[in-house]
Amino acid sequence: MDSAESAGTGADLLVATALANGIDHCFANPGTTELHLVQALDRAPGMRSVLCAFEGVCSGAADAFARITGRPALGLYHLGPGFANALANVHNARRHHTPMINVIGDQASWHLAADAPLTSDIGSLSEWTGRLIEVTSPDGAGPAMAEAIRGALGDEQRISNLVVPADHAWGSTTGVPPIVERPLRRRPDADMVAVATAALARPGGTLVLDGPAIGAAALRLAEAIRLATGCTVTSGRPARQELGSDVPAIDQLPYFPQPLQLALAGVSTAVLVGAEEPVTFFGYPDTPSYPLPTEAGRIALGGPGDDLEMLLAAIATELGVEPSEGPGRTPAPLPEVDPGPLSPRNLGQAFACAIPEGAIVVSEAISSGGGYRALAPSAAPHTLLAVTGGAIGGGLPAAVGAAVAAPDRSVLALQADGSALYTIQSLWTMARERLDVTVVICANRRYQILDVELAAAGIELAGSELTALDDPPVDFAGVAAGFGVPGVAVTTGAELVRALDRAAAEPGPHLIEAVLAG
Amino acid sequence: MDSAESAGTGADLLVATALANGIDHCFANPGTTELHLVQALDRAPGMRSVLCAFEGVCSGAADAFARITGRPALGLYHLGPGFANALANVHNARRHHTPMINVIGDQASWHLAADAPLTSDIGSLSEWTGRLIEVTSPDGAGPAMAEAIRGALGDEQRISNLVVPADHAWGSTTGVPPIVERPLRRRPDADMVAVATAALARPGGTLVLDGPAIGAAALRLAEAIRLATGCTVTSGRPARQELGSDVPAIDQLPYFPQPLQLALAGVSTAVLVGAEEPVTFFGYPDTPSYPLPTEAGRIALGGPGDDLEMLLAAIATELGVEPSEGPGRTPAPLPEVDPGPLSPRNLGQAFACAIPEGAIVVSEAISSGGGYRALAPSAAPHTLLAVTGGAIGGGLPAAVGAAVAAPDRSVLALQADGSALYTIQSLWTMARERLDVTVVICANRRYQILDVELAAAGIELAGSELTALDDPPVDFAGVAAGFGVPGVAVTTGAELVRALDRAAAEPGPHLIEAVLAG
Repeated sequence: MDSAESAGTGADLLVATALANGIDHCFANPGTTELHLVQALDRAPGMRSVLCAFEGVCSGAADAFARITGRPALGLYHLGPGFANALANVHNARRHHTPMINVIGDQASWHLAADAPLTSDIGSLSEWTGRLIEVTSPDGAGPAMAEAIRGALGDEQRISNLVVPADHAWGSTTGVPPIVERPLRRRPDADMVAVATAALARPGGTLVLDGPAIGAAALRLAEAIRLATGCTVTSGRPARQELGSDVPAIDQLPYFPQPLQLALAGVSTAVLVGAEEPVTFFGYPDTPSYPLPTEAGRIALGGPGDDLEMLLAAIATELGVEPSEGPGRTPAPLPEVDPGPLSPRNLGQAFACAIPEGAIVVSEAISSGGGYRALAPSAAPHTLLAVTGGAIGGGLPAAVGAAVAAPDRSVLALQADGSALYTIQSLWTMARERLDVTVVICANRRYQILDVELAAAGIELAGSELTALDDPPVDFAGVAAGFGVPGVAVTTGAELVRALDRAAAEPGPHLIEAVLAG
Repeated sequence: MDSAESAGTGADLLVATALANGIDHCFANPGTTELHLVQALDRAPGMRSVLCAFEGVCSGAADAFARITGRPALGLYHLGPGFANALANVHNARRHHTPMINVIGDQASWHLAADAPLTSDIGSLSEWTGRLIEVTSPDGAGPAMAEAIRGALGDEQRISNLVVPADHAWGSTTGVPPIVERPLRRRPDADMVAVATAALARPGGTLVLDGPAIGAAALRLAEAIRLATGCTVTSGRPARQELGSDVPAIDQLPYFPQPLQLALAGVSTAVLVGAEEPVTFFGYPDTPSYPLPTEAGRIALGGPGDDLEMLLAAIATELGVEPSEGPGRTPAPLPEVDPGPLSPRNLGQAFACAIPEGAIVVSEAISSGGGYRALAPSAAPHTLLAVTGGAIGGGLPAAVGAAVAAPDRSVLALQADGSALYTIQSLWTMARERLDVTVVICANRRYQILDVELAAAGIELAGSELTALDDPPVDFAGVAAGFGVPGVAVTTGAELVRALDRAAAEPGPHLIEAVLAG
């Protein structure tokens, strides 16, 4: 579609505006009110639509797509209830500042008053996660999409929820797609940089990195700052991080409150770069919400909307140092994989060894993922997408979105069994799109994290049925096969290594259920 | 727990208050902030908790449980994102006025300010579907639960969203569970009854029934009114309806706008009993939102909160007639099942013939369910639960809830393939609880409803990927087996009859994928 002479429906103008601004993917689960949007997506050259069998898959995939490409994808949803199904993964995206544009079809504007069954107040859903933008005429579809893009690319709220009444999607327009100017990133304040740099050079100075992406350049700058000042460097829960043998490793702040408090005990000043002050994930009795020592200084040097690399470069310049080259320290070699019965330890070994150079790793495995994470600095260079907002069910959709975003890279998903079940329909889209994804299910057949928390809280729940997933155990390989993804179950490290090798040798998606010894 | 001497946590008091008011089931998907609620549920004698692997299963099951028993069940959710996953089926419950109590764990109250990852504004989610009630202390857990019950049982808003901060769940209390008085149903206004009765006796008088339940007594009253006045009797989308050979049959208003308009073309006055004025499901060009003739009278005799039977009895008394006995007319015998390749017609025949007396039928199959619905008046007496709010994914969860509510009754679910995928994790809870559910998947391997709507809208979408589910086709029998439910695929009427027979002969859940000829 020639953007200078577009003539068609409001839906056509909306899609043309997305395309004119470099947004060329849509993760969709449409219904009757989105038929003209479907038509517009179908006939717009250069737009790729990916059908998902549940809206939570769309939103999680769109999030990961944006994390990998730096560009938002569209999500397409069927009125309020369809958008409601997408919300949990929109929450995750909001938490790590992923740009996201949710296109929500609605009743024809004149039909709203009839309060038909699917009618609802989309505004209150939108308020939960982002900014509401309403299309109010077919001509308005272009400016509204432009406003949504502007919001998604801006420094503040990055979730734009674009409501499209059906009559404005099907109505005619000769509107021209507006082009959105990219916002400039704020430059860091020189005085703040000087103060932060001085603080890092004092004993107990700590650099905390977080935000949408911690890339190789940022890691090399941080390593140079560490060497020059003697500070420690840690990360929060970045949405995307480079890892592996060619980049400096940094410690991640622990998940549980006591280790978290311990990790920060000696801090004199925390310099927060793209990071909020660390907090515990939940509130616990007799445990502070903020684990930094009360007397420690806090220096916020740029928020998540700011450019991490630019901020770190300013500190490095202040120090007069260059980014380190390579990993800075020699990574330990990866261990031999223990061939015996599977534990989180040898599962992590096999997984880390299987990562090919340039892979994308998606991890949603808090209880069982530690083995991999500890070895990640020694693995082949790869990109890690973590699930950072805490909403469960982001892992498999993220694997979909990452694979769509980077068809030339392998995607490995380390996935807990309990959380896999929330968005298990992701497997079908993997099969449909022939995505090169290998899913490793860490099958402990429990909500293990709850058992850990119960024990920590001193609650005896012998035989509680509310944390057990073992009756019946889900046959994940069978479920995967049902969705069109070849699946296999393994119980030892040796079997897991072989299964990972086979998955790597064949194109398309695979699922390996790694059954952990009880 | 003795309600006169309860001493324990706020969570204990909350659960004791539910139990003291006859609420003894909880459909749960808990997380860290709900550990003390889990503990309280586990140790309260008489409370049954049912674990679901996704929150949308909990809410759909709780809805159906209430529709069958007339008593609300609890749903238990993990903060805002967990509740978000439940919302689509809460929307369905709201639309058909099911009493529902959603217990939502939240961060410890003093931890909210830290804005930890899972923290969110639960108020805006709650506003979308119901009424927010907050527990503000351990002692307050009892009164708050009582208020939630009062709301759920009241005439107006029946969705109570009860937010429980973790510290108020774990804190101690000696509070006593309050007992909630059941609200009295409003008696109908005598003048309105007289006016409505007179209108029904005039040519074109129509009785429109709707609401949470159309029971056998209401149907027999409506039949007596029909015989006495010559009016027509139709139903909207009741949440629960008695059907089969021992109750009078009434026509259901059609789904699509043109047949709907046609069905109401001759109406002089519509007497709405427990019903809103009929509206089209969506807005279409050149089609009115309200299909009743503009000049027709509308008499609203009681809303969905009122007692349908009492209202109809008032009209019958005005007319001086008694409820009809039995079905009123002789139902046509059920046809022989066409043994050939499956179509919606012989699928419906086989399904209708397989319904045992006293069964509960759950139907979420708009495109393929018509065959059964047409034959339902001739089938054995049964209860139909329809998915009425339009949000997709209510069918399988409803089958879970119905089977938990009525362990002595068979549950048959007629389920479209596309909508089955939204809450497919329901199968696992069916296996876990050994529920006597037979799921028949109507596998046309498309979002057929969209193709129908596209054709009606004159949109050519040859080869659109956004309505096709056939690449790859989901092997539902395989997916079911993976979740622990025996599954089989059939392609002919004869095979379907045999599979239904086998499922009826064996206890526990079964899934039959009925593959429709293309």
